[in-house]
Amino acid sequence: MNFASDNTAGIPAPILDAITAANEGYSLGYGNDDWTKRVEARLSELFEREVAAFLVPTGTVANSLALAHLSPPWGAVLCHVDSHVNDDESGAPEFFGGGLKLLELPGQNAKIDPAVLTERLSRLRGAPHSVLPSVVSITQSTELGTVYSLSEIAALAEIARSRSLKLHMDGARFGNAIASLGCAPAEATWKTGVDALSFGATKGGALAAEAIVFFNPADAAGMSSRRKRGGALISKHRFIAAQFEAYLKDDLWLKLARHANAMAKRLSDGLSAAGEPPMWPVEANEVFAILSNDADARLRKAGAAYYPWQAVALPEGRKVPQGHGLFRLVTSFATRADDVDAFLRIAHPTKP
Amino acid sequence: MNFASDNTAGIPAPILDAITAANEGYSLGYGNDDWTKRVEARLSELFEREVAAFLVPTGTVANSLALAHLSPPWGAVLCHVDSHVNDDESGAPEFFGGGLKLLELPGQNAKIDPAVLTERLSRLRGAPHSVLPSVVSITQSTELGTVYSLSEIAALAEIARSRSLKLHMDGARFGNAIASLGCAPAEATWKTGVDALSFGATKGGALAAEAIVFFNPADAAGMSSRRKRGGALISKHRFIAAQFEAYLKDDLWLKLARHANAMAKRLSDGLSAAGEPPMWPVEANEVFAILSNDADARLRKAGAAYYPWQAVALPEGRKVPQGHGLFRLVTSFATRADDVDAFLRIAHPTKP
Amino acid sequence: MNFASDNTAGIPAPILDAITAANEGYSLGYGNDDWTKRVEARLSELFEREVAAFLVPTGTVANSLALAHLSPPWGAVLCHVDSHVNDDESGAPEFFGGGLKLLELPGQNAKIDPAVLTERLSRLRGAPHSVLPSVVSITQSTELGTVYSLSEIAALAEIARSRSLKLHMDGARFGNAIASLGCAPAEATWKTGVDALSFGATKGGALAAEAIVFFNPADAAGMSSRRKRGGALISKHRFIAAQFEAYLKDDLWLKLARHANAMAKRLSDGLSAAGEPPMWPVEANEVFAILSNDADARLRKAGAAYYPWQAVALPEGRKVPQGHGLFRLVTSFATRADDVDAFLRIAHPTKP
Amino acid sequence: MNFASDNTAGIPAPILDAITAANEGYSLGYGNDDWTKRVEARLSELFEREVAAFLVPTGTVANSLALAHLSPPWGAVLCHVDSHVNDDESGAPEFFGGGLKLLELPGQNAKIDPAVLTERLSRLRGAPHSVLPSVVSITQSTELGTVYSLSEIAALAEIARSRSLKLHMDGARFGNAIASLGCAPAEATWKTGVDALSFGATKGGALAAEAIVFFNPADAAGMSSRRKRGGALISKHRFIAAQFEAYLKDDLWLKLARHANAMAKRLSDGLSAAGEPPMWPVEANEVFAILSNDADARLRKAGAAYYPWQAVALPEGRKVPQGHGLFRLVTSFATRADDVDAFLRIAHPTKP
Repeated sequence: MNFASDNTAGIPAPILDAITAANEGYSLGYGNDDWTKRVEARLSELFEREVAAFLVPTGTVANSLALAHLSPPWGAVLCHVDSHVNDDESGAPEFFGGGLKLLELPGQNAKIDPAVLTERLSRLRGAPHSVLPSVVSITQSTELGTVYSLSEIAALAEIARSRSLKLHMDGARFGNAIASLGCAPAEATWKTGVDALSFGATKGGALAAEAIVFFNPADAAGMSSRRKRGGALISKHRFIAAQFEAYLKDDLWLKLARHANAMAKRLSDGLSAAGEPPMWPVEANEVFAILSNDADARLRKAGAAYYPWQAVALPEGRKVPQGHGLFRLVTSFATRADDVDAFLRIAHPTKP
Repeated sequence: MNFASDNTAGIPAPILDAITAANEGYSLGYGNDDWTKRVEARLSELFEREVAAFLVPTGTVANSLALAHLSPPWGAVLCHVDSHVNDDESGAPEFFGGGLKLLELPGQNAKIDPAVLTERLSRLRGAPHSVLPSVVSITQSTELGTVYSLSEIAALAEIARSRSLKLHMDGARFGNAIASLGCAPAEATWKTGVDALSFGATKGGALAAEAIVFFNPADAAGMSSRRKRGGALISKHRFIAAQFEAYLKDDLWLKLARHANAMAKRLSDGLSAAGEPPMWPVEANEVFAILSNDADARLRKAGAAYYPWQAVALPEGRKVPQGHGLFRLVTSFATRADDVDAFLRIAHPTKP
Repeated sequence: MNFASDNTAGIPAPILDAITAANEGYSLGYGNDDWTKRVEARLSELFEREVAAFLVPTGTVANSLALAHLSPPWGAVLCHVDSHVNDDESGAPEFFGGGLKLLELPGQNAKIDPAVLTERLSRLRGAPHSVLPSVVSITQSTELGTVYSLSEIAALAEIARSRSLKLHMDGARFGNAIASLGCAPAEATWKTGVDALSFGATKGGALAAEAIVFFNPADAAGMSSRRKRGGALISKHRFIAAQFEAYLKDDLWLKLARHANAMAKRLSDGLSAAGEPPMWPVEANEVFAILSNDADARLRKAGAAYYPWQAVALPEGRKVPQGHGLFRLVTSFATRADDVDAFLRIAHPTKP
Repeated sequence: MNFASDNTAGIPAPILDAITAANEGYSLGYGNDDWTKRVEARLSELFEREVAAFLVPTGTVANSLALAHLSPPWGAVLCHVDSHVNDDESGAPEFFGGGLKLLELPGQNAKIDPAVLTERLSRLRGAPHSVLPSVVSITQSTELGTVYSLSEIAALAEIARSRSLKLHMDGARFGNAIASLGCAPAEATWKTGVDALSFGATKGGALAAEAIVFFNPADAAGMSSRRKRGGALISKHRFIAAQFEAYLKDDLWLKLARHANAMAKRLSDGLSAAGEPPMWPVEANEVFAILSNDADARLRKAGAAYYPWQAVALPEGRKVPQGHGLFRLVTSFATRADDVDAFLRIAHPTKP
């Protein structure tokens, strides 16, 4: 019953097998190998256009390098107040961007509100006194487990375009989002105005593999050097490429994500049936559950693992009742239906 | 009728005379001169304790070097959403701090609200995932022309101390604040818990001179190198020291500030008498006036200079009526009562 | 016959098996797991004292984080002109160190010459005008395949200590050095004055695993945050820890290194016997061979892989004859005696 | 007899008068004033083409902002080992450039040797492993008081152009160089291939004023923000502009420089006549004198001020004899012939 994060799971067999299969003979390092070439081609195919892709070992460095590359050092990135880049990267975007500034925006369901974005942009005093707004960054699926619809993305893209800003997508859980939306990756990214995507594979199953994808290869000029200088160029590169290749092969990434999403839905349905619907809509693989202190104690005693969640703001009309807490439950490719059912039984024993 | 900023004024005679007087013979550079020694001694005397002081040419670099020095590179500075460090330094604190993060806090009258500060600190996930809160920065007097009382500063200092954070004071208008409070500089700074002060002289009259003051000299170790590396060490240092020496001599800084504050009060009283009280309390040398579009047009036609002001949030119950705008008026040592009266007459012609 | 680098080899079975073995069930991320705890304990045991260790995915980020942590941002690192940190990290140390400066020193056999170090230190004008010398960084084994003796390290440590500098060791090939020296790791590091070690496992066999080791844990304060902010904290941390655990288990790291060194010696002996002794002493796993253009052509035609080498300076009295070139040959755990013999036969056909 | 530096002198009357004259009434800050507009126009006129110019308060920040702007963060600047940017800016270029790397080159008379430059460029392993060479920076006149001839600059410009590098000129003593060369500023800069110039006025007489001049305005895009973010935008900008305006007016800068150069020549001729010719050619306003320890003692006792000089390398065939030292003597607009003659008499009493 480990719902602490999707990175507490291990590695699904196809990806581990790919690492083993890649362990034959010699291969030049730093990306000069066939696995890397194949992944680059596969990504262009997946996104239905020629892209520039750079594999790196962590989501934090994927986001940070992307943002640093899309913005001048005196620029600003507009992001949601709950976003990972804002809260959980220990200042990495600011660091990699040479002093880049993150401007945090509130919004329901961890999604940037177009009106709020417009207002914030209007309040900037303008260069040179004020940072130059350069990038809008959205997380897909969001940190609260919701998913931007195509029209929501398009609305933000329109504002970005009108102000000459780039649009970046933190896709640490991109698989979960596409599985939820059921559309083509191209539709959910560049066709709707996204300029660059941090395409995560780690939370989806890989050992450690993320791809920074630029939909306009010209935007990527110099990224090789920035990545190397950022200490994010893996020398035995065939192994990070092999992971990503297996992740994409036969739509494994989507199959694993659909499973994770289904487990989240199972959990969510069970909690709702017990009279405790999750705090935010469950559209991907995260469930924010309201549990009584007693239920929390029983679950932890039974070995369940999950984190309490401190929200910036709750949805209108919602609150955490006395004697209860708010907790984040994350499902993954490894979550079994048994685990979900056991959790539900312990959380709400009176529920059949 | 130039109310655009306190930096649109020139240099009061005593300070210009001091530059001229310092222009005798030779002097070693970089601070190895008698003027600098005297200023350092004078500052320790003024603050009633031994301080470490570093003269630099701009307020932006004074704030940025101070914040960078008080925080590790993965640290965060908590400041007001309207603060100069947050809005008007083009990311300089983030840059000088090696990726330092600024966390903006709302609060009435441009003052940080202790409850908001406490809440924000509680929401940080903790190192290493989250930036390490390291500094609280307050502006005194604030960007909205208000002044923190000693007990307000003490309340924030208490929270900072309890969380091992440093307390920095952006004193670009420190003179105006002390003139308003009528207390000793030591009372308004270290005795109330301030660790470092960016003591501004430029807005108060100097050509270009700011002092970074550390109340605990040990906190300043390495600052000489940081300043030099930051390109902020003036070679003909006697001239920046002579400005600061003259600024402090015979309490010139307070006399000039009292005058500026008195002009602001005159302006404020006149506007209130006309039925248009300023938007925020006038406690220093800034007045945020509500003017009708017609008044604005008349004033500009008459050559008045001032900037419109876009607020993050207005005080409760206040609003800018239709057909009106909100404008910032800043007085300085150079503001004459005539200018104020002329402004009032044009703004509100029906008022005698 | 792949002698291009030790990172062109794959992963030895014990390490790959360890990754597979670690792929059981769930584990909290970011280092909060049993594998990581065991590796930290094992490192303290290996170095015969309590150390602070941080696992990261690349040698570049290991060096850069270490140097950034040992030096203030206005500091300087003294290193050899041929060092990896100086030549092959694309400015990563300067970047991670917030503008840290690298001062390159010449010296025979890629080793820093104590007299040169002393002279360079004496020539620095001193803070604040000049960078503050903060760290001496040596590579062990060096980029030219030589190994510092304990007394050579001690000589540099003495100079560093007398000037209050830290001593950092880039141990990307630490295994090869210890295998060559035959002494205990503690002897070759902290007992001889080394303050921090970038202990590489990747070139020695791991998929991607390096450990930054601080011999005085107090020196490591804040490194968790710096690593996270540097995008170098692996989320599925058990897998990087499992690699390092297997690397150290039963002295695998030394066995693999001894083999690589033996293959280099075999190669070196063969070349010397053919009348073309390597350019620099072969003390670890690198051989700098002088090959005729014809031999180079034959070898490449036969599929051998290796890089030409452009030297800053050749040893006294040595030169690359006309019609010849200088090439770097690197052996690894995967190098077979057959490959070496085949290389020798093709390089020098008249040799039996 | 103060020969410590050209920044130990004060401010010549025309420049101080200009500051006083500018102290009339109000003026918008940050460069939005008439003095600044006039200086920008005057610079375009002086350089016989439209330039983009940015006034800043120190030479260190002028160089650092220029280099940071001409290079990507993973770039490298090739400069002379004796250069100010390399030795005397405490890592400021590296800092402002986000980790920019300085590659130091040896060369006679503090001038970069084209052959050495070419060799160094050839030795860089190439992106992404190695920094990307981006800028060649020369100091004119050099730190050793020599002056690059137009053909010497052209030779370096040719190499730079062939490798797509920018050519930057540190002109802290540009006036002294032009006075020495007797050519037009345009000839000595962009017509010979210089892309950007740090045009110093401080050493030449200003209180604190330097201009970063881009000969191709397109290269300057974003510099306003970089300067503001670098804390180098003076708010009471009319005063820094007034200094530069007076410096250029009626060729004051050249007149002052000619005087300083003439004083250096007087000193040099006197020393040569005494049998102790300076160590390096005296082509501008610096004289590197060999003085006996006795002469040094006499001079200091008589109140003379100057610094000892530690050279990286002496010219071929030259050495500092036993019982002697090498000292740097710098003349300025303020140096009087009397001071020079007194110095010579005390240094070499047997000379009439």
